[in-house]
Amino acid sequence: MRILLTNDDGILAPGIRALRNELKKLGDVTVVAPASEQSAVGHSITLMNPLLVREVHEEGSLLGYAVEGKPADCVKLGLVELLKESPDLVVSGINAGSNAGINVLYSGTVAAAIEAAFFNVTSIAVSLTLPEDTQYERAATIAGKIIRQILSHSPAAGELFNVNIPELSQGEPIGVRVARQALICYRESYEARTDPRGRKYYWLHPDPLQHDDDLNADMTALAHRYVTVTPLRFDLTDRMRLEQMRDWTWTLS
Amino acid sequence: MRILLTNDDGILAPGIRALRNELKKLGDVTVVAPASEQSAVGHSITLMNPLLVREVHEEGSLLGYAVEGKPADCVKLGLVELLKESPDLVVSGINAGSNAGINVLYSGTVAAAIEAAFFNVTSIAVSLTLPEDTQYERAATIAGKIIRQILSHSPAAGELFNVNIPELSQGEPIGVRVARQALICYRESYEARTDPRGRKYYWLHPDPLQHDDDLNADMTALAHRYVTVTPLRFDLTDRMRLEQMRDWTWTLS
Repeated sequence: MRILLTNDDGILAPGIRALRNELKKLGDVTVVAPASEQSAVGHSITLMNPLLVREVHEEGSLLGYAVEGKPADCVKLGLVELLKESPDLVVSGINAGSNAGINVLYSGTVAAAIEAAFFNVTSIAVSLTLPEDTQYERAATIAGKIIRQILSHSPAAGELFNVNIPELSQGEPIGVRVARQALICYRESYEARTDPRGRKYYWLHPDPLQHDDDLNADMTALAHRYVTVTPLRFDLTDRMRLEQMRDWTWTLS
Repeated sequence: MRILLTNDDGILAPGIRALRNELKKLGDVTVVAPASEQSAVGHSITLMNPLLVREVHEEGSLLGYAVEGKPADCVKLGLVELLKESPDLVVSGINAGSNAGINVLYSGTVAAAIEAAFFNVTSIAVSLTLPEDTQYERAATIAGKIIRQILSHSPAAGELFNVNIPELSQGEPIGVRVARQALICYRESYEARTDPRGRKYYWLHPDPLQHDDDLNADMTALAHRYVTVTPLRFDLTDRMRLEQMRDWTWTLS
């Protein structure tokens, strides 16, 4: 089995290192990851600048490719150019921080998995809930189990899964839950400040994740210490609304 | 009616200027837009840096706010901080270039509209197909008609629409089509080069948009010179797959 592994925290992050060690039990792993941290970059790609690529070696063998770009760049460049053969699986993670709810849209980790789905390659995004962020080996073992179980069901090419692991400091997760993406908005705020030149600027406050009581929603299940698995699609079309809107009268005159 | 207007080409781009003139016929327009061009940034937001904001005046009155950030930052900051009252509508555009098919995921223009939907504000993204990019006034007139027709159906708070206008150099569009997001992948390639220091880098080749024969897909309808309107959702959950996966046996042991 050939696996392309990427992330958005950068090629030297502990999460990708732990996941690589785990995935090597499943097949050949090629790492193509950002050279530096790229959090909350969403599905950015690099169009107007070239992508600098550097081979990273460790203990005499090729660890992978460090790309001066975004997570989605890494997957695109890996699939189109760097890998000799198309991989059977793209994995993105382990991200430092969960990617549930509307965070799925902000996430570079998930965007990398979506990019793989564009190319009809099965992909899995894996994220670990903070602040307990030091136990990547434990998280990678859990991720390995979930990935094996997904693969045992022979997903179709291009299928896309979002896996979130709860905080691990309070013990093992209490189970696995297939959950939908939560749709709750954050309660955000900015703090206004003035710089020494008199210019106004705003800091976004960190916001505790909101969740409701629906254990079928990823954020709620995570808060209750379940590992969540969410199948995703990159078709944003609202099909029900589409059918209604076909009956509207439209005119350009 | 209160309207927040943004884009991803920057506050001084001709597309946002033309659309602002058109939207002023519908209500009060406040522009909150990136200070500089932000193409293909997807749903990036700025977490680790502050957002510098500058008021932009024109002919003695406030044109709007220029934000050193991404399109989604502009909407979030506008809704949470800059606007005194929540707007009735967020409009994003007119983008220089269509945002159809999988480009919807790469698009900063669409991400801005999605950000508004997070806050339960109705939003409309508007993009104009290139290379005919000089007729923003004509495009804005068309956009105004489509926006009025959408609003005449009293969309629910948080509904999200993606409007694409075809190339206008060959005459008027032949009609309006409610279309789904196309799901075809691009046929992309990179060109490898070596810099004067011997480092390898890659340029992404521009890729002609692929489309099939399905006039119900946005890219195809656009190529056939229809204005397309696509209702979008930010719930990426694959509901059908979710139900199947609930029957799988999951274990952490």
